Amino acid sequence: MKLATVPNGEPDGGLVVVSADGDRFLKPLGIPTLRHAIEDWPVASRELSALSRQLQDGGGDDAGHLTFGAPLPRAWQWLDGSAYESHGELMQRAFNLDPIEHDKPLMYQGMSHLFFGPAEDIPFADERDGIDFEGELGVIVDDVPMGVSAAQAMNHIRLLVQINDWSLRRIAPLEMKTGFGWILAKPPCSMAPFAVTPDELGNRWTNGRIHLTLATDWNGEPFGRVKTGAMSHGFHELIAHAAATRPLCAGTVVGSGTVSNADFRQVGSSCIAERRGMEMLDEGEARTAYMKFGDRVFMEARQTGARSVFGAIDQRVVEHRPSA
Amino acid sequence: MKLATVPNGEPDGGLVVVSADGDRFLKPLGIPTLRHAIEDWPVASRELSALSRQLQDGGGDDAGHLTFGAPLPRAWQWLDGSAYESHGELMQRAFNLDPIEHDKPLMYQGMSHLFFGPAEDIPFADERDGIDFEGELGVIVDDVPMGVSAAQAMNHIRLLVQINDWSLRRIAPLEMKTGFGWILAKPPCSMAPFAVTPDELGNRWTNGRIHLTLATDWNGEPFGRVKTGAMSHGFHELIAHAAATRPLCAGTVVGSGTVSNADFRQVGSSCIAERRGMEMLDEGEARTAYMKFGDRVFMEARQTGARSVFGAIDQRVVEHRPSA
Repeated sequence: MKLATVPNGEPDGGLVVVSADGDRFLKPLGIPTLRHAIEDWPVASRELSALSRQLQDGGGDDAGHLTFGAPLPRAWQWLDGSAYESHGELMQRAFNLDPIEHDKPLMYQGMSHLFFGPAEDIPFADERDGIDFEGELGVIVDDVPMGVSAAQAMNHIRLLVQINDWSLRRIAPLEMKTGFGWILAKPPCSMAPFAVTPDELGNRWTNGRIHLTLATDWNGEPFGRVKTGAMSHGFHELIAHAAATRPLCAGTVVGSGTVSNADFRQVGSSCIAERRGMEMLDEGEARTAYMKFGDRVFMEARQTGARSVFGAIDQRVVEHRPSA
Repeated sequence: MKLATVPNGEPDGGLVVVSADGDRFLKPLGIPTLRHAIEDWPVASRELSALSRQLQDGGGDDAGHLTFGAPLPRAWQWLDGSAYESHGELMQRAFNLDPIEHDKPLMYQGMSHLFFGPAEDIPFADERDGIDFEGELGVIVDDVPMGVSAAQAMNHIRLLVQINDWSLRRIAPLEMKTGFGWILAKPPCSMAPFAVTPDELGNRWTNGRIHLTLATDWNGEPFGRVKTGAMSHGFHELIAHAAATRPLCAGTVVGSGTVSNADFRQVGSSCIAERRGMEMLDEGEARTAYMKFGDRVFMEARQTGARSVFGAIDQRVVEHRPSA
């Protein structure tokens, strides 16, 4: 089942079910938003599944005229892990950081009251802040009680999503040094248009990991073709970690951290900072600059045969113009 | 104007306006929750002010039978500063940390989908995690555009609140070392019952600071009588800091950090970790243990003459019992 949200002037937009190719859609009568659906999943998923079957049978309306926003335009909680070890290693190199001491998953809490849609222009205050993309995957959970095990957490994963976790690299290491985590360095994220149930992925969803290839292009040039399955902790383990001392409310989004592979020299990467880390490793200094206003980034998680799962993020970076 | 929320089985509870002494209340007809009010403040505040005047004139119903929850039982965003310098100094001592390098306000993003009410039992998984209270003040803003100045930010402060930012001290320094900020160390906060408009404080609200005394008792013994005005950055400056690279949505709660004074030996403190820091300074080692199951904490911000502003937080720490 594939779900999407159509902006309608309300903060949560309007929920639609889309066909596997994203070309047709049906609007559920009794479930106005994805937030409503995830807060009452056992009931909502029955109606949504019925619509999904109608779409499989060729029903539904032409989605060609729709513009999709983020499937979840706002959430009560966004917890982002850092579950790809080669990302951590390259960040350490790029920012000249000491190795991070930790025996548990790495995770930060980010702003969640706004997720940009997949084709929106993204406003930034200053090019000099080091504007970077971070290609990630994520899951949306229903209500998770405090203290769940990783095995129990698996049953709370209801939807999978693709995320661009925008980052400001000149600010991030300064905020890390405080120990308080990131505020200024982590402006709103973006989401690809489709949230999918795990069964859509078949055996590409195993052990709390999504097995696809994340394709990233920067200004039309291939930048990364990175396998997404190499998480040191699965999503179920990230959820259990977060829920050790708090409940997670329905609609909490849990992220993987930047998708990264150990053979980064072959497959490239999902953020500019990693490329800079590679350059420092191989050439002694970083040569690639961060994004400039007008730059574009394209991200799409693909199955074999280049079939898109979550649809594509395709965005332009623009200068923020304060309103009067 | 004093606002409160009565639990009613819905996540946001039901909004009421209360008299200055908290003894009488009126229920607004057109504004079901504080979240609705803050999201449409110019309109909502007119109806709420009219009810507040009726209460001043002796109208309203007896509030004696009401149980108040947190005025905002959930929020889209909780950004907590650390604006009392003596708190930072004692924390550094208590946890043997290096001085924090920063030229901007310190701030972390915490969980916001659940604020406990002022008299609820607070469940924790394990006494050994170092259960501690942190007495704080906070503000609730309406929509704050990205890039506002501190002066502009002042006009977005709509309500003032009192908060207990529960903390797990055995976990906090480990999470700080990762640079990612706190997840496990910061379970849900609590709020005192009344959210008040700044005008309620008269000249005790100046320069983005609240000038009261925060009284904290631990198991019935006086623990702190700490002046709240000594913030190194005012709330307007904390808001402008947070909004440098993101908009803040209406209903965002911004916290002061633990209320602390430089003459801590005279006035005591608003968290146990500070007392332990003092003991390490004066006696070479920390002797005071953190909270045990069954312990109580009482917190109340007072004007001269012991008059309470936000009502009291009065809570018991209990062992979390996972549901099956």
